[in-house]
Amino acid sequence: MNLYGVGVGPGDPELLTLKALRLIRDADLVVIPTSSKRITFNAVLPHVQGKEVLEFPLPVRKDRSAYQGLVDQIRSYNNVVYVTLGDPAFYSSLYRLGQFTEIREVVPGITSFSWCSALHKTPIALGKEKVLISPDPVNLNEHRVNTLVFMKGEVESPVRCGNGYFTVSIKRLA
Amino acid sequence: MNLYGVGVGPGDPELLTLKALRLIRDADLVVIPTSSKRITFNAVLPHVQGKEVLEFPLPVRKDRSAYQGLVDQIRSYNNVVYVTLGDPAFYSSLYRLGQFTEIREVVPGITSFSWCSALHKTPIALGKEKVLISPDPVNLNEHRVNTLVFMKGEVESPVRCGNGYFTVSIKRLA
Repeated sequence: MNLYGVGVGPGDPELLTLKALRLIRDADLVVIPTSSKRITFNAVLPHVQGKEVLEFPLPVRKDRSAYQGLVDQIRSYNNVVYVTLGDPAFYSSLYRLGQFTEIREVVPGITSFSWCSALHKTPIALGKEKVLISPDPVNLNEHRVNTLVFMKGEVESPVRCGNGYFTVSIKRLA
Repeated sequence: MNLYGVGVGPGDPELLTLKALRLIRDADLVVIPTSSKRITFNAVLPHVQGKEVLEFPLPVRKDRSAYQGLVDQIRSYNNVVYVTLGDPAFYSSLYRLGQFTEIREVVPGITSFSWCSALHKTPIALGKEKVLISPDPVNLNEHRVNTLVFMKGEVESPVRCGNGYFTVSIKRLA
């Protein structure tokens, strides 16, 4: 079984990469985490028609054996794509799954913050600027940065995006 | 003139998004900054064949009038794509150009750090982790983060990627 962890971007089907598209089309099983089911399905729907799809219930919190259960379910397939909304590098369940089986290849996706920056035509970093990415509120006195990217919930900023599953805010500091 | 700022990812032509591909194909002029010429051409080459391409000399440092000169050169076209290696949100010349003319739409791209994370199958952030992105070396005592992404030059880390134009390092702290 070859397992591919594939980032599919923020939910806009046009923000899929060519590589994500190829791997999804070549897969004989596509695993879609249910936590972001509607958005993720929207991102990949044109490409999974007629394909075997397995919904994997997320979030998995304490009882990680769910990942072992998933591995048992998928091991008889040849090419399995595990879909991650956004990019696997940031807060993805992919690397939890990777503790239970080998990942053959990881494919990066468009992050929510890159998407939000583009929508608002607001850069996250210019020149020598530093950026802090955090899921939780932070004490700005502890972090000397130019831009704060807040991955969940909200900070007070006009640059804020959501899609019903996640919210992301970009705050450029004075 | 409709100007599109389009991120084309780290240089792998398969890491182009479907949207970037569509806009490049529909453009009557594609502007390619020369600073990253070889890598950027590699990313978009299959799609600019037979298309009018303008090379724009970068870096532009103090004399920003080069951007006004570019605007004068492109204003007679209908649909112009200004290509940015990686993602326009991070350290891109696109927003410098945007000081001289209106950008109709920005299209996010795969960042160098998402690409590097995927190549090394190493997450940048899990759970509640915080990330600092910086172009310069930082004093870690000033930044309480879990992961450092260093956009230029190098930090001591096994997770490091380069393509001849840029280097990116990801350092997960203990």
